[in-house]
Amino acid sequence: MEVQVLSRPFLKMTIFKKSLIYKIAGFFISLETKEILKRITETLEEIFNAERVSIFRKKEDRNYLEFYTFSRGEDELKKIKIELSKGIVGWVYKNNRPLIVNDVSKSKMFYKGVDELTGFKTNSILAFPLGLKKRRYGVVEIINKKDGKFKRKDLKICELISPFVAIALENAALFEKIEEMFFGMIRSFAKAVEAKDPYTSGHVERVENLSYLLAKKVGLKGNELKNAKIAGILHDIGKIGIPDEILKKPKKLTKEEYEIIKKHVLYAKEILEPISEMKDIIPAIYYHHERYDGKGYPEGKKGEEIPLLARIISIVDAFDAMASDRPYRKALSAKKNTKRVFKK
Amino acid sequence: MEVQVLSRPFLKMTIFKKSLIYKIAGFFISLETKEILKRITETLEEIFNAERVSIFRKKEDRNYLEFYTFSRGEDELKKIKIELSKGIVGWVYKNNRPLIVNDVSKSKMFYKGVDELTGFKTNSILAFPLGLKKRRYGVVEIINKKDGKFKRKDLKICELISPFVAIALENAALFEKIEEMFFGMIRSFAKAVEAKDPYTSGHVERVENLSYLLAKKVGLKGNELKNAKIAGILHDIGKIGIPDEILKKPKKLTKEEYEIIKKHVLYAKEILEPISEMKDIIPAIYYHHERYDGKGYPEGKKGEEIPLLARIISIVDAFDAMASDRPYRKALSAKKNTKRVFKK
Repeated sequence: MEVQVLSRPFLKMTIFKKSLIYKIAGFFISLETKEILKRITETLEEIFNAERVSIFRKKEDRNYLEFYTFSRGEDELKKIKIELSKGIVGWVYKNNRPLIVNDVSKSKMFYKGVDELTGFKTNSILAFPLGLKKRRYGVVEIINKKDGKFKRKDLKICELISPFVAIALENAALFEKIEEMFFGMIRSFAKAVEAKDPYTSGHVERVENLSYLLAKKVGLKGNELKNAKIAGILHDIGKIGIPDEILKKPKKLTKEEYEIIKKHVLYAKEILEPISEMKDIIPAIYYHHERYDGKGYPEGKKGEEIPLLARIISIVDAFDAMASDRPYRKALSAKKNTKRVFKK
Repeated sequence: MEVQVLSRPFLKMTIFKKSLIYKIAGFFISLETKEILKRITETLEEIFNAERVSIFRKKEDRNYLEFYTFSRGEDELKKIKIELSKGIVGWVYKNNRPLIVNDVSKSKMFYKGVDELTGFKTNSILAFPLGLKKRRYGVVEIINKKDGKFKRKDLKICELISPFVAIALENAALFEKIEEMFFGMIRSFAKAVEAKDPYTSGHVERVENLSYLLAKKVGLKGNELKNAKIAGILHDIGKIGIPDEILKKPKKLTKEEYEIIKKHVLYAKEILEPISEMKDIIPAIYYHHERYDGKGYPEGKKGEEIPLLARIISIVDAFDAMASDRPYRKALSAKKNTKRVFKK
């Protein structure tokens, strides 16, 4: 027979192998460092039946290791700096070899500093270097085996896993670098536009932070939270299209001038529209001058017709404007301000 | 003994296992789709002793498969669209099961279209679905086993490899998406700034493209090529700090006004400086008005003191300016223009 169709969806491998390989695949399911560290530490705790896993990373231009750990049940990432020369971790990093210490109280190498900082009690350690080819990225420590001692055969699994941990963390670092570059860029541009408007010093930064906090408060998560930040940063970017003499006019604007100012939401839309990845951000910016009572611009949308992110930016934007001085009035107090924003 | 030090740097595993796992790790060593596809196809050709490997991907919002293949010894990626329902690939995708066809001439399922397009002669195929949990990303085809037939045991390796291929390609797609977003953003901002300067329509786009081409011509690669593009896009971004009335002045500028225009390289530096990832881009922009003879600005640097990327932008910028009409003169011919740029 020349055609072979497998009767079951894929085939059977030994359960251990299959589950291990799927677990490793899970390291790559995200490009966010925090998410990856969480997955790796949890996976290794499970595989080795250990109480805790800590990951020590050495960044390229630093001469110390950065220490990451997750406490069970907590979502918080602890970050501590460790000197390269210290403790079992330092030895493993320096010698690029794994090490098992089944009773740390009998080991002179053991450095108590981390336990003192974290309040955790270390008994036994399996530590292995993270690397790929000639590059060394750091060290993984598997701590307190629950059932007996770490054994040499455990190191086989470590060897298998080590390059994957290293690459997963490196990729996340690369991803975060370009994401940081993106955020840095839009912040800088927003500030450059802000610099043209003499009344708004620091406004962009405040709107970014407050939009993020308010979005979190109303339950947004992950990408939506990121979008709230991006929209907060870029909400006034369209002012780049408003002539300087109107933007910088120290007196009250005429009706015609105000109509021109209103166009900044349209200009923002035009600037962002060619970027397909901005499609969820544009409505948040385009509609951030709509009002819940329908008296806003550009379309006079009402209530929940206005996209949620636009409502968030709108509240934060108004709040910050009222909390700032203007040539024709002083800033409102926080209390008065809050009242007025929520009356609006 | 409570402390166990392994005498050799890490331990031995069977050579096959070790090399396979290292080969899989290689899929993740880059976040560039093209590089990853090349690695995956080459690795699978080697593992299965096959003549060719093709990867078919289904993007989320498309109802066809995109086909990628590398011809041996060529660096070119071929991209072809295939209907979801067609051929062995379509069957494997639809049924989410692997399939071995050791003589395609005897199979009614086989779709000749791809061979006709690529000029390649297919004899035998092992095809398996790319997926992870419930998501299906596409299909991998391993073509023309050089020594005999594909066997069921080959599918064990496919199963092991499948999730890694899927994740590696997904991560690259995610990375490219944010990279595209970054480029889209800086292009849009550059165009918004350009829109304030009535003499420069399309200038940014041309400088981006020409800078890239010239950088390639002088032998730059990878990140340096990307930097040439970024610097090309952003070279005039500092004009956001120049008052409209100077930028838009239809007559010749006074000496004082020209001094203000010159500040655009300083403003660009100030805008980009807070972004640490921009450190290689800033000199290219800051010095793009220096001249080889030392008569440029802002520092009067000479010859090779001027960073290479800045020299590239400078030539391209001058070339494009001379090739464009100005209110006070027509564009120069390509020949005259080239002469004048290289005399400069």
